[in-house]
Amino acid sequence: MSEFSRRNLLSAAAAGGVIAAAASDAIAQGQPPSGPTPAPLAGAELPSFRFRLGAVTPKSWDGGWAKEATVAEFPVSEKLAGVLMSLAPGALRELHWHANAAEWAYVIKGQCRVTTIDPLGHSEIADFGVGDVWYFPRGHGHSIQGIGREDCLFVLVFDNGYFSEFGTFSISDWLGHTPPEVLAKTFGVPAQTFADFPKREVYIAKGPVPPPLAAEPPPGALDSGTLTHRYRLLAQRPETYPGGTNRLVSQREFPISATMTGALMQIKPGGLRELHWHPNADEWQYYIAGRAGMSVFGSHGRVRLEEFAAGDVGYVPQGYGHYIENAGSEDLELLIVLNNGSYESISLTAWTAANPHLLLSNNFRVPESTFASFPTRQRFMPG
Amino acid sequence: MSEFSRRNLLSAAAAGGVIAAAASDAIAQGQPPSGPTPAPLAGAELPSFRFRLGAVTPKSWDGGWAKEATVAEFPVSEKLAGVLMSLAPGALRELHWHANAAEWAYVIKGQCRVTTIDPLGHSEIADFGVGDVWYFPRGHGHSIQGIGREDCLFVLVFDNGYFSEFGTFSISDWLGHTPPEVLAKTFGVPAQTFADFPKREVYIAKGPVPPPLAAEPPPGALDSGTLTHRYRLLAQRPETYPGGTNRLVSQREFPISATMTGALMQIKPGGLRELHWHPNADEWQYYIAGRAGMSVFGSHGRVRLEEFAAGDVGYVPQGYGHYIENAGSEDLELLIVLNNGSYESISLTAWTAANPHLLLSNNFRVPESTFASFPTRQRFMPG
Amino acid sequence: MSEFSRRNLLSAAAAGGVIAAAASDAIAQGQPPSGPTPAPLAGAELPSFRFRLGAVTPKSWDGGWAKEATVAEFPVSEKLAGVLMSLAPGALRELHWHANAAEWAYVIKGQCRVTTIDPLGHSEIADFGVGDVWYFPRGHGHSIQGIGREDCLFVLVFDNGYFSEFGTFSISDWLGHTPPEVLAKTFGVPAQTFADFPKREVYIAKGPVPPPLAAEPPPGALDSGTLTHRYRLLAQRPETYPGGTNRLVSQREFPISATMTGALMQIKPGGLRELHWHPNADEWQYYIAGRAGMSVFGSHGRVRLEEFAAGDVGYVPQGYGHYIENAGSEDLELLIVLNNGSYESISLTAWTAANPHLLLSNNFRVPESTFASFPTRQRFMPG
Repeated sequence: MSEFSRRNLLSAAAAGGVIAAAASDAIAQGQPPSGPTPAPLAGAELPSFRFRLGAVTPKSWDGGWAKEATVAEFPVSEKLAGVLMSLAPGALRELHWHANAAEWAYVIKGQCRVTTIDPLGHSEIADFGVGDVWYFPRGHGHSIQGIGREDCLFVLVFDNGYFSEFGTFSISDWLGHTPPEVLAKTFGVPAQTFADFPKREVYIAKGPVPPPLAAEPPPGALDSGTLTHRYRLLAQRPETYPGGTNRLVSQREFPISATMTGALMQIKPGGLRELHWHPNADEWQYYIAGRAGMSVFGSHGRVRLEEFAAGDVGYVPQGYGHYIENAGSEDLELLIVLNNGSYESISLTAWTAANPHLLLSNNFRVPESTFASFPTRQRFMPG
Repeated sequence: MSEFSRRNLLSAAAAGGVIAAAASDAIAQGQPPSGPTPAPLAGAELPSFRFRLGAVTPKSWDGGWAKEATVAEFPVSEKLAGVLMSLAPGALRELHWHANAAEWAYVIKGQCRVTTIDPLGHSEIADFGVGDVWYFPRGHGHSIQGIGREDCLFVLVFDNGYFSEFGTFSISDWLGHTPPEVLAKTFGVPAQTFADFPKREVYIAKGPVPPPLAAEPPPGALDSGTLTHRYRLLAQRPETYPGGTNRLVSQREFPISATMTGALMQIKPGGLRELHWHPNADEWQYYIAGRAGMSVFGSHGRVRLEEFAAGDVGYVPQGYGHYIENAGSEDLELLIVLNNGSYESISLTAWTAANPHLLLSNNFRVPESTFASFPTRQRFMPG
Repeated sequence: MSEFSRRNLLSAAAAGGVIAAAASDAIAQGQPPSGPTPAPLAGAELPSFRFRLGAVTPKSWDGGWAKEATVAEFPVSEKLAGVLMSLAPGALRELHWHANAAEWAYVIKGQCRVTTIDPLGHSEIADFGVGDVWYFPRGHGHSIQGIGREDCLFVLVFDNGYFSEFGTFSISDWLGHTPPEVLAKTFGVPAQTFADFPKREVYIAKGPVPPPLAAEPPPGALDSGTLTHRYRLLAQRPETYPGGTNRLVSQREFPISATMTGALMQIKPGGLRELHWHPNADEWQYYIAGRAGMSVFGSHGRVRLEEFAAGDVGYVPQGYGHYIENAGSEDLELLIVLNNGSYESISLTAWTAANPHLLLSNNFRVPESTFASFPTRQRFMPG
C-alpha cells in the first residue's frame, strides 16, 4: 500500500465511515456532464495553457487593485477563473456575492479581515494571514478588508470560468439603485438616512483599519455556523518527498469546501511533480515563486510544454496528463486549485507499479528486464 | 441567532442529523453547472421578468383548459415553466408523464383527484383541495381529475423551462400508435379490445365524477410507497411577520420534493418582502391576488421594477437580488416555486446585521452613526 | 405489491437502509440538467434508433480489431456510446484512460485479463469470461488482454456519446511524447532505458498470453481497494417471466458501478418486453442473437418501429416509451445499458393496474367493462 493511499484509508477509518460506501460515493461525485470537447481543445494542436496574469494592467481603485483571468482572457480556463487582488490597510473590497461561482482564496502577503453570511443566517468574521485559505459557497455574501501595516495580496479562484460576466453583485450597486423609501421600510429608518449613500458601485473603499477582533464574538458575529470559512494551509504539516513538499486541502480537511480542493506545492531545484492526471477535476495554477516547465498531454499525440514564472497562471483540463518541473535554481512555489471537493489523482509510477512487468514489456515492446528497477510504488515528487 | 436560523437549527437537531454534515451537504446540493450568462440576461438592460399568463388565450378541451408559460413565451424562464389549468368536475387530465421535468402543483380553487405511479411500482390515489401541493418526480406517471361541484383551478410548475416541447407523453397518444396485437399481448386480452380506443391524444377527457375514496385503500392503490405526493401547504401554521405571512415547503417538510421548494406568501398592504436573493435556485412566481411591485437587481447597475397583478407570472434568476412590495390596498397573495429541494435565502437586513457598523460606514462612505438604529437581525417581511 | 417492488423493498430492508431516505435519494439522483430537446429528436418525425455496428468495417491492429458507435456515427446516441472489440490470445489493449467517460463492459466470447488503478492507488488484476461485466469510473487507468485459446469478443459502453473524440489517453502516446530525461527522473532509471519505447500510440500490442493468476495476489495487485471491478452477470439467477428472463446489474448489485446499470435480457419466440419507459436514464442496446422489433414513442404522435438483428445497436432517449418483441423463431438475446447507477422503469401494465377501471374508461372513452380482465400487476415480459 502506498503512503498516499494508506493516509487516505486511515483518514476514512478515523472518520468512522464505511470505506466502501465512501469510495463509492466519491466515484460519482462532482463529475460534470460530458458533451463534445470544448472548442479550444478540439484542434490538431493543443492551445496555450499559460496566462501571464502578473503582467496584466490592473484595474485600480483608491486603496487597491485587481487583475483577472477568466475565459474571456484565457480561453481554455472554462471551469475555473482567478483574480489577483491587493488591498491597502483599511481598504475594503465591499460587501458582495457571486451568483454563479464559489470562491476559494489564498493569502500570499499581508493580512485581511473577512466577513461572510450564509443562507441559515450564520455569519463569521475572521482574520487571515499569509498561507490562509478561505472558501465561500456560491452566492454567500462576503467582504474583504486589508488590515495590519502592509498591503494584503491574495489569489481568488472561482469554480466557473465565466464568474465575472454579470456574476458579481455589490451591495452599493444594489442599494444605489433601490428607492430610498424601500430601503427605509426594509431597515425601519427614515428614507433620508440613505441620501448620501453611493449611487454607483463602490467596489473597493478606502477606510480606517478596524480594531482587533475581541476575544468575545464581535457585534455581528453572534451567530456563527458550525463550519468555519478559514483553513490555515501553510500551518499544515506537509507531505514531504525527495523533490519537495505538498500541502493539500480538500473537503476532507476543510468541510465547507464542497466544490474545490487546493494545494500548496514547493518543488526544489531538480525536483519534478511526476506525470499524473486528475480523473474528476480541472486544475488552475498560480505560480508564486521560481521558474517551471509544465507539459500537458491531450491524447492523439498532442503535447504542449510551456514555461512558467512568478505571476503566471496555468491550466489543465480534467483528465489531461501533465507534469511540472522546477526549471530554475530556486525553489518553485505554486498554488493549485481543482474544481472538486474530493481530491483524485493518478500518478504514472503508481500505475506502472500496479502492472506486471510482462504486461509493461508487451505494452512498450521492450524486454521485461527493462522494468526490473522501476519503482514499486508511487513516487509523486522525485528529486 | 435569528428566528429563522434558530428554527432551521432546531429542525436539523430534531431530525437527529449532524448539523455540520447536513450543512455541508446542502452547500453542494443541486447547483447547476455554470457557463456563460444565458442570452436574455447578458445585455446592458435587464429583460422583462413578467409574463401575463392570465391574459393568454387558453387551449380548450371539452371539460377543461390550460395556459402555459415556457421559455418559448417567456424567455428568461429557462429553469422553470408553469401552466394554469382548469378541470370541470369529472374532467380528466389523462394519464401521462414528463420525460424532462418534475412537476410541482398548487390548488387554487376546487378539488381534484390525482393518481400516480413510481418506478418501484408504488402507486397513490389522493384527493386535493384548495391549498394542497403535489410533487411528481421526473418521469413518474400521473393523472388529474376534477371532483366535487365546481371547476378545479391549479398551477403546475416544472423544473425545466422547456418542459412542454416534446416533453409530455400521454397514454392515449402512445396506445393509439401501438399495434393492437402488441397491446393484446401486453395485457393478455384479445386485440379486438382496443378497436375503439382513441387513435390520437385525448389530453383532457370529460367523464363522471368518481365516487369518494374508500377508507380502505381503493383498487389500484394497494401498493403505496413510503413517500406521499401530497402536502397541505395552506394547513401549515405560517411564519408571521409585521408585513404578512409565509408558508414554506421544501424537501425538509415534504420529502419526495427533492428538486423543488414552494412558498405561499401573503403580504399586507404596506408590507414588503425585503431585499434578498437565493444562492441555489431560480424563482418562479404566480400572483394569485392583489397588486405588487417587484424589483430585480442583476449586477452592473442593472435594475428592473415591474408591476404584477393576479394572473401574472414573475421570474428571478439564481442569485439575482429582488424585493416584492404590496402595491395595492388589499392583501397580496403569491405562490413562489424554486428549482431546488433545499431552501436557501439571504436577506439584506440579516447581512447588514452581521457586519460591524464601522465596516458599513466604510462601505457606504457615511458616518458610523448612520447605522445606530439599523436592525440587529433579519426582518424578512417588514410592515 | 408487485413481485418487482417487493423484491426492491426486501433488498432495501436487508441492506438496513431507511427506505424513505433511500427512495428520496434515488429520486434526485443522476438526473441530467434539462434544456431544449437535442436536434435529432426535435423534428416532426423521429430519427432512426438503430445503428448496424456489426456491419461497420473494423479498425484493425495486429492482434485485434474494434468497431465503434458514437454520436458521430449514430446521432441520437448523445449520452452513451459503444465499441465492439476483439482481442487474440495475448493481444493487449494497452494501458489507457478515458478523460470524459466511465466504461462498462460485457464479455460475449472468450476470456480476457483486466488491470486497473484508482485515485487512491488501489489496483486490481482480474480475469473475465463469458457473461462477466466490468466497470471503470471515469478517468481510471486500465488495460485489457486476451487470454485463453480463442479470440475474446466484448462490448464496451461509455456514459458519454462523445467519449472517443479527444477522450482516450494511451500510455504509449504519452510516454512517446515525453522527453526521456523526464521519464528518467520520474522512474529513477537512466534516460537510455526509454530509447526503444514506441514513439506513437500502440493501441493494441500483440504478445504472449500471461501465466495464470497466482492464488496469492500477483505483483502489482498488492493494494486492492474495497470495491471489485468485476460482476458475474450471467452467473446471476435471472428473474423469469412467461416471455423470457432478465438479469440486472445496477449499483445495488455492483457498488462501483455508480453511473451505469446493465441488463442481459433473453426473450423467447413470441415474447415481448412490454411497453415501458425509464424516468432517469437513456438506454443503449446491443443485440447479441436473434431478431427483434423495437418501437419507440416520442410524444406528439411520433412513433418509430425498427427491426434489429445480431450486431445491431439500439438507443432509447430518457423517458421515451418503448417495447421490444422477439421478431424471429429463436431466442432473442440483448444487452441493455442505462446511464444511471440506480435502475428505474415503469411498465404500462403496472400503471394501468394502479388506476381504477372508471378512470381508464374515461381516459380511453370505452366502457368500464373493457378492463375487467386487465392484469392487476406488472407483467414485464409476457409470452
